[in-house]
Amino acid sequence: MINQMKGSRSMEFENAPQIVSAASVVGPKEGEGPLGDCFDLVADEAEFGEDTWEKAESTMQKEALQMAIGKAHLEAWQIRYLYGGDLLAQIIATSFGGGTANADTPFFGLYGACSTCGESLTLAAMAVAGGYADYAAAVTSSHFGSAEKEFRFPLGYGNQRPLSATWTVTGSGAFVLSAGCRDASDSASDNDLKREEQDFIEGCIIVRGATPGRVVDMGVRDNMNMGACMAPAAADTIYQNLMDFNYQPEDYDRIITGDLGEIGQRILLDLMKEKGYDISKQTMDCGIEIYDKEKQDTHAGGSGCGCSAVVLAAMILPKLETGEWKRVLFVPTGALLSKVSFNEGQTVPGIAHAVMLESHTYETCSGAA
Amino acid sequence: MINQMKGSRSMEFENAPQIVSAASVVGPKEGEGPLGDCFDLVADEAEFGEDTWEKAESTMQKEALQMAIGKAHLEAWQIRYLYGGDLLAQIIATSFGGGTANADTPFFGLYGACSTCGESLTLAAMAVAGGYADYAAAVTSSHFGSAEKEFRFPLGYGNQRPLSATWTVTGSGAFVLSAGCRDASDSASDNDLKREEQDFIEGCIIVRGATPGRVVDMGVRDNMNMGACMAPAAADTIYQNLMDFNYQPEDYDRIITGDLGEIGQRILLDLMKEKGYDISKQTMDCGIEIYDKEKQDTHAGGSGCGCSAVVLAAMILPKLETGEWKRVLFVPTGALLSKVSFNEGQTVPGIAHAVMLESHTYETCSGAA
Repeated sequence: MINQMKGSRSMEFENAPQIVSAASVVGPKEGEGPLGDCFDLVADEAEFGEDTWEKAESTMQKEALQMAIGKAHLEAWQIRYLYGGDLLAQIIATSFGGGTANADTPFFGLYGACSTCGESLTLAAMAVAGGYADYAAAVTSSHFGSAEKEFRFPLGYGNQRPLSATWTVTGSGAFVLSAGCRDASDSASDNDLKREEQDFIEGCIIVRGATPGRVVDMGVRDNMNMGACMAPAAADTIYQNLMDFNYQPEDYDRIITGDLGEIGQRILLDLMKEKGYDISKQTMDCGIEIYDKEKQDTHAGGSGCGCSAVVLAAMILPKLETGEWKRVLFVPTGALLSKVSFNEGQTVPGIAHAVMLESHTYETCSGAA
Repeated sequence: MINQMKGSRSMEFENAPQIVSAASVVGPKEGEGPLGDCFDLVADEAEFGEDTWEKAESTMQKEALQMAIGKAHLEAWQIRYLYGGDLLAQIIATSFGGGTANADTPFFGLYGACSTCGESLTLAAMAVAGGYADYAAAVTSSHFGSAEKEFRFPLGYGNQRPLSATWTVTGSGAFVLSAGCRDASDSASDNDLKREEQDFIEGCIIVRGATPGRVVDMGVRDNMNMGACMAPAAADTIYQNLMDFNYQPEDYDRIITGDLGEIGQRILLDLMKEKGYDISKQTMDCGIEIYDKEKQDTHAGGSGCGCSAVVLAAMILPKLETGEWKRVLFVPTGALLSKVSFNEGQTVPGIAHAVMLESHTYETCSGAA
């Protein structure tokens, strides 16, 4: 682990966990976007066969989790601990989704707004790297219908959206983490997960470390401009990560934020420049990648804790798997508000949890881990 | 760690973390109850000087966290990771409470309903025992005013409450965990926390292990009878703990649930009898302890994630500290619902996270840890 000096906040895993499988399930609008062909499952309709948006989100999340476990060739009970969350009050999408679907697995409910994907991956990685679990899973979701109802206006009201607003992604991503990398020739492994049996991760993607985020409140109060609320937190976490690991931006192939959108991304670049770093070559944002702004009328981009999760599963991990990218800093960003806090005039602080992902072949992995 | 066999869910810490300090802050009604003299701070009024119930809860939580850190003779930055949550939508009491108060500390937001105290202690203990942090903190809170508004009716409506209903505790408990036990004579310790400098924990209270809970849904739908919703989860977790550690109920001085109340406790005893265990001699419930049922008109007992937290800080830890109790299973219980899920006709599943607490003198502790 990194020295716990004043100011440092990161962790580096001595036994870096491997992401052994991932799954993404999205709604029809996401299926029509630029990444449409990359998702594991695109639903025909956003209701997912349910009669409420909340149940639709739960069903979508169950699908994603079960698919990820299946891809890892595991049975549900082999997932020792489950870390999950969503955007809804009292995280009911997850309580009735992944938490219920995997009823034999202890469940740690999380809330980090749209940063929850990073939070869940960090905690799952800590559990696996710390020897508490052979396998842990992380699942998050968001749904346009349930989120608009939760945070903004009923869909039937048809409110106008400013250009700074983001569009909540209907999607759920799930990930299975295991202890250490496994080589196909490693017959001494006491589990059945062999390289030739895996149908998702051919290379070895490890979670090298993490920089958990802190609450950053710059006094922004506009719930229709989440990018501005979250950008300072993203800058804080990315800067901290570079400091703690003594890295330059070039040490990453990509630094990928969750859902800053176009406006938030510009603020992030400005804030990082103030701190002395130009990350314009490395930066990417899941919210910008997932929709076609011109054709899909999504304004600043996509958002929600499903946004970063499905882009990680459908685009980032595959590029790490093939070795196109060697090292990525994945930084889901969250805006901390409720309709009550907003209506009571509170600010909208941000939080960003960074996860360091590295691509290895099975030959180089054990040396690296 | 315990063998990760099918069916087992517990963890036993090789390097058991110590609870080095705890603090409890409550409202006036809790101060008038049987434990009134035990709390660190009893507020004169439930508003805590704020103009909304939500801000009152945040302020109360900040107080508890800062007090716990102060009692441990630490500075805020020395808390490496903070785990916290509350009952409100998007856990705003914590985002604007402990999360903001300790702005230098990375924050993991949690939601486990009233079980969140157990969830936060488990994750903080995992972080410390896993070597990720020298110090981690856990904080949870609930507030009668904010909870009634969130889950039931506006206070001004003056609704009648059935006898099965519980009264949400206005209170916040905070805990600081450190790696391993420290002896006053251990001058080689690389931190400043010495026995003689501690003003709270004179003995050594360790977190021996934990049994994280899973979502247990028995189909109960009555949000005015939370005890019945949560009792099956409590029974599930307690039974699992006894199985995993091969313990009998007598191996614990007390098995203390969070907020089952009187009705839930009766159901728990019945369910445990069905499983072949009589825990009637060991069982206690924080919700029953905190109020005087006859004088305070609280019906089935207290509830909320502040309930178990303040009773742990004010009553359970002191009895472990003096050695009156040697080993306690602390089992905060949560009911997983939101007003949306309830109004949409969903069930109210339960979850219970168990934490194993042991009392040691400084002489026996290192051998035990």
